[in-house]
Amino acid sequence: NTSFDRKKHPHRRYNHLLDEWILVSPQRANRPWQGQREETTEENRPEYDPDCYLCSGNIRANGDRNPVYKGTYVFNNDFGALLNEDVEFANEGSGFFTLLPERGINRVVCFSENHSLTLPEMSVEHIKNVVDVWQEQFNELSALDHINYVQIFENKGSIMGCSNPHPHGQIWAQSSIPAMVQKTQDQLKSYFEKNKRTLLEDYLEQEIAAGERIVTENEHFAALVPFWASWPYETMIISKQKRENIAAFSEAEKKSFAAVLKDLTTIYDNLFETSFPYSAGIHQSPTDGKEHPEWHFHMHFYPPLLRSAEVKKFMVGYEMLAEPQRDITPEQSAAILRNLPTIHYKKK
Amino acid sequence: NTSFDRKKHPHRRYNHLLDEWILVSPQRANRPWQGQREETTEENRPEYDPDCYLCSGNIRANGDRNPVYKGTYVFNNDFGALLNEDVEFANEGSGFFTLLPERGINRVVCFSENHSLTLPEMSVEHIKNVVDVWQEQFNELSALDHINYVQIFENKGSIMGCSNPHPHGQIWAQSSIPAMVQKTQDQLKSYFEKNKRTLLEDYLEQEIAAGERIVTENEHFAALVPFWASWPYETMIISKQKRENIAAFSEAEKKSFAAVLKDLTTIYDNLFETSFPYSAGIHQSPTDGKEHPEWHFHMHFYPPLLRSAEVKKFMVGYEMLAEPQRDITPEQSAAILRNLPTIHYKKK
Ligand SMILES: O=P(O)(O)O[C@H]1O[C@H](CO)[C@@H](O)[C@H](O)[C@H]1O
Ligand SMILES: O=P(O)(O)O[C@H]1O[C@H](CO)[C@@H](O)[C@H](O)[C@H]1O
Repeated sequence: NTSFDRKKHPHRRYNHLLDEWILVSPQRANRPWQGQREETTEENRPEYDPDCYLCSGNIRANGDRNPVYKGTYVFNNDFGALLNEDVEFANEGSGFFTLLPERGINRVVCFSENHSLTLPEMSVEHIKNVVDVWQEQFNELSALDHINYVQIFENKGSIMGCSNPHPHGQIWAQSSIPAMVQKTQDQLKSYFEKNKRTLLEDYLEQEIAAGERIVTENEHFAALVPFWASWPYETMIISKQKRENIAAFSEAEKKSFAAVLKDLTTIYDNLFETSFPYSAGIHQSPTDGKEHPEWHFHMHFYPPLLRSAEVKKFMVGYEMLAEPQRDITPEQSAAILRNLPTIHYKKK
Repeated sequence: NTSFDRKKHPHRRYNHLLDEWILVSPQRANRPWQGQREETTEENRPEYDPDCYLCSGNIRANGDRNPVYKGTYVFNNDFGALLNEDVEFANEGSGFFTLLPERGINRVVCFSENHSLTLPEMSVEHIKNVVDVWQEQFNELSALDHINYVQIFENKGSIMGCSNPHPHGQIWAQSSIPAMVQKTQDQLKSYFEKNKRTLLEDYLEQEIAAGERIVTENEHFAALVPFWASWPYETMIISKQKRENIAAFSEAEKKSFAAVLKDLTTIYDNLFETSFPYSAGIHQSPTDGKEHPEWHFHMHFYPPLLRSAEVKKFMVGYEMLAEPQRDITPEQSAAILRNLPTIHYKKK
């Protein structure tokens, strides 16, 4: 009998944040690909696009006009998935037909008036302004009685359903704690109750000691490929000190956070020398007025690319029905990312 | 105050099979779409393609040659995600770094020697042959001691990561029960213990009484849009009598199952008059040698399209970080699907 080698043999890993397993198939990395290829997006955009509904001074799809802004700009999404209206609810369903009204606010956060930029192409100071806005928005929304969770995220690239290349992200603030956040909270809570430390304090300590999945770090943050990552180049930024949410960040921490964002997204762009698509978002404590000593600020990056700017990983079939599956191991991905420069390929 | 209307107001629905919530935003269906469009795939393929590695008599990527087959043909996947080898495991990890070796068998099931076909274009008798093969494979694989779950599925269309348009599906048989099947089993089990009936017996009875989410039905099966569906045109086929797995199907049931597969996939093709992409797969009892009175055979269809053959729903950002979100309601989708003909648009 051969003995098990995690670099060669199929195995399952346990995701401690979601209480789920994933399947890792390292031997499968070399299969030929004859499937769909993505179109790569045009790299040179103008600084101002008269047809862009996010550019400064332009008219949006609903007829409103953006102010002539410089830097960041926040507005309520014209086609939000939530409504802020308080509706009366005479119980509409039960048993198999259980539903509950959901109330909330959807905002769009433009990162810059410059249509041509993306986070890795912005300066650390400029990214720090975005972090400031996230903190302000979190504070403003969390103060509202009916808002119990604030989801800050960015969809980057048309392959990630982003319909406008203007640098921007979104905030969905709502009355319920969404399913995956709730799951994470359950895991964090049971760990904290048992160990009196947050799950991510202990996890990060062990990851830093192991070293092999760390991508980049600075004084206040580390970026790593989680041991249980499902996307080929999935990463997570974790605060080195336990912070329940972004409201607790000091000026120095906000600057460090901006710096790690710049480094990580630059590494991503350098991987395939393309503007690297992803969905990224912050997980932090709910704003439900309860104590949350179990929470520990982190940000997930879920990038879809697998082998090149054209070939993505398809999470379909087995993955939709059974469980997430990956080919290249998290340790291999981290080694590749860690060895890439933090100077953007366009600036070389 | 306005009173709540599930056709107009955002709400959350509870998924009884996965113990998860989804967000429904009916008011959002009309937002403009400026994002990525899919290329529609060429509709007229030859009956034989000399470059196809699944066609009868052709050479595959690994150098093996397919026999000259007619009808269905099954072989072991040349680049499977699992290996059937039994490896020795000296505990490689624990705590945050928990992993376990996984053993299994990956097979490819060609549905026909005819390269140009898809399920909806095959006759019921021909689809019945595919169902026969699924049953045989299930019996053969479940008899193996180290195989505890058999996942039968199909990825259809290049948008669903299918790298070859030749009509085929896959079977992944493995030693563990995969994450989503385990979750489903937990839900089925706790329901069965409480009610002495399967969750899906009771659910289907209530859906048939309600009528509004039923798409099509015959003597032995019903196809419906689940009350908690997350994909715009997601459906589920459920056996009217409780069957733990496909091994329990009679000849008459296999024929009925083939008929409902033909009707549902034809309706799908007729929706946008395109070869409709999806990932579909069967959920049934594990083959772990235990009693599974809680299980009830069903098949999920997860199609990505939203508005047309070119515009899909992106499950990104909020959906990857928070919870699944849909615009059009399950009742609207079911009404649209139910009113489509079961004669294929190409045959009109
Ligand atoms: O096995 P295939 O068809 O080459 O690959 C396809 O289906 C698999 C199982 O759903 C997925 O893991 C792959 O990402 C997908 O491209
Ligand atoms: O809100 P947008 O950018 O129009 O839409 C995009 O992001 C949303 C939130 O992640 C998703 O629900 C949509 O499917 C996606 O296309």
